[in-house]
Amino acid sequence: MKRSELIENIRRKGSFLCVGLDTDPLKIPAHIAGMPDPIFRFNKAIIDATAPYCVAYKPNMAFYESFGAMGWDALERTIAYIRQNYPDQFIIADAKRGDIGNTSKLYARSFFEHLDVDAITVAPYMGQDSVTPFLGYEGKWVILLALTSNKGSHDFQLIKDQSGTPLFESVINTSSQWAGPEEMMYVVGATQGRMFEEIRRVAPHSFLLVPGVGAQGGSLEDVCRYGLTDDCGLLVNSSRGIIYASSGEDFAQAATAEACKLRDQMSEILKAANII
Amino acid sequence: MKRSELIENIRRKGSFLCVGLDTDPLKIPAHIAGMPDPIFRFNKAIIDATAPYCVAYKPNMAFYESFGAMGWDALERTIAYIRQNYPDQFIIADAKRGDIGNTSKLYARSFFEHLDVDAITVAPYMGQDSVTPFLGYEGKWVILLALTSNKGSHDFQLIKDQSGTPLFESVINTSSQWAGPEEMMYVVGATQGRMFEEIRRVAPHSFLLVPGVGAQGGSLEDVCRYGLTDDCGLLVNSSRGIIYASSGEDFAQAATAEACKLRDQMSEILKAANII
Repeated sequence: MKRSELIENIRRKGSFLCVGLDTDPLKIPAHIAGMPDPIFRFNKAIIDATAPYCVAYKPNMAFYESFGAMGWDALERTIAYIRQNYPDQFIIADAKRGDIGNTSKLYARSFFEHLDVDAITVAPYMGQDSVTPFLGYEGKWVILLALTSNKGSHDFQLIKDQSGTPLFESVINTSSQWAGPEEMMYVVGATQGRMFEEIRRVAPHSFLLVPGVGAQGGSLEDVCRYGLTDDCGLLVNSSRGIIYASSGEDFAQAATAEACKLRDQMSEILKAANII
Repeated sequence: MKRSELIENIRRKGSFLCVGLDTDPLKIPAHIAGMPDPIFRFNKAIIDATAPYCVAYKPNMAFYESFGAMGWDALERTIAYIRQNYPDQFIIADAKRGDIGNTSKLYARSFFEHLDVDAITVAPYMGQDSVTPFLGYEGKWVILLALTSNKGSHDFQLIKDQSGTPLFESVINTSSQWAGPEEMMYVVGATQGRMFEEIRRVAPHSFLLVPGVGAQGGSLEDVCRYGLTDDCGLLVNSSRGIIYASSGEDFAQAATAEACKLRDQMSEILKAANII
């Protein structure tokens, strides 16, 4: 999906919500867990319940991999289901991959050709030749980890170099020479608050994928106060807060309600900023 | 597998060779590629051909993932085959994972419980809570990326902080507070030459997993000159140089010959250092 289409979808829907499909069979409602094909069945219900209120889905690979071949199969069918029924959704494989060139090339083939997602999250530690194999696919995106939402983000990402630049800023500066904001986004955790101001100084136009609202404690208002650009520039993810909003038979309605609530808040923010 | 067992295997076999199972159906011999179940069939032949000369196998996840559910299935059977027939082999999933705590926990479950490998490679960028969920499994290991073999390793891993410490050294220093050399190793590329001296200053006892000998141009002699410890402390990986030594029907014999040649060089090195 092109940047212009993504922005158009955000404007049309009044939403920059990404729903994280972190589907854990131990957490899905008991009546679904007991049926055949529970992962796909749960995902399908969540997708049908939330599609009008979001612009993106983000399956987290760990949840599918933890079920081996069966999990992969459920993921493949989930992606095909979204593509077929909701072709305006942006699909992000949250994979945090990154390896030497010939291996990253294979990951790119796997995610962009085989699974056919729009974007993949990539870890920057191994540098340029671990990232560039994911670039150059028409309409496909790299979402590079910059400043993540977890406590461990402080261990290395904030280390300042000899000119006082923290590592996450070096990652943005250096990687912006590999690709522009038409094919590269950055992961910045919602828990990072004022750091969004800093990020916008070095990445004024890039889309940011923002996890950490909800269960991890980040605030939508704070993220938007410092992170919003003229054409939105944000995809804010919520996983557990939506997909596990209820553990009963009403889980899909509860997911609709949570997604709708976030969409309403986002619409207000977009209106206030004259983006819609 | 415990550290003492790994060292015992190295001494008994006179080898610290790890064979990288980077199985690419486009590169395996035509007569195998045309048969049913080519990935597992190729792996089985390579394993039977090399097991006497190596102490570890390292399937690279990218190669299996690029075939989706079918690839995962072939990988699961490959690991089961090694476990059943060569229980003294140390199995490393080269996955370079690392995510927020609850996700890393799932990856750990996936790799250590479901796939039942001995070790997984982990990327350090997200810090402590992305790494520690992989720790605490009896006999299982984290192999953390420190200084990788690729050109892009220079982009971020060598950035010096305000006290002059390069990032890869901070990764080793900080992570050594999370786990000792009984359950954590580091990836250091064979292409890094003299840097092994530096690494041994900060990680004197840790095992190092060393990719990059062979196709990537690293030298076994250089690695050992600076990297060898009293109980070896090295697992040197070769992938393409062994598994694609011949593209003909003699591929298994050619793999034996290459693995045997490396084992002989390693035996000489171990003898010269009075380790065997």
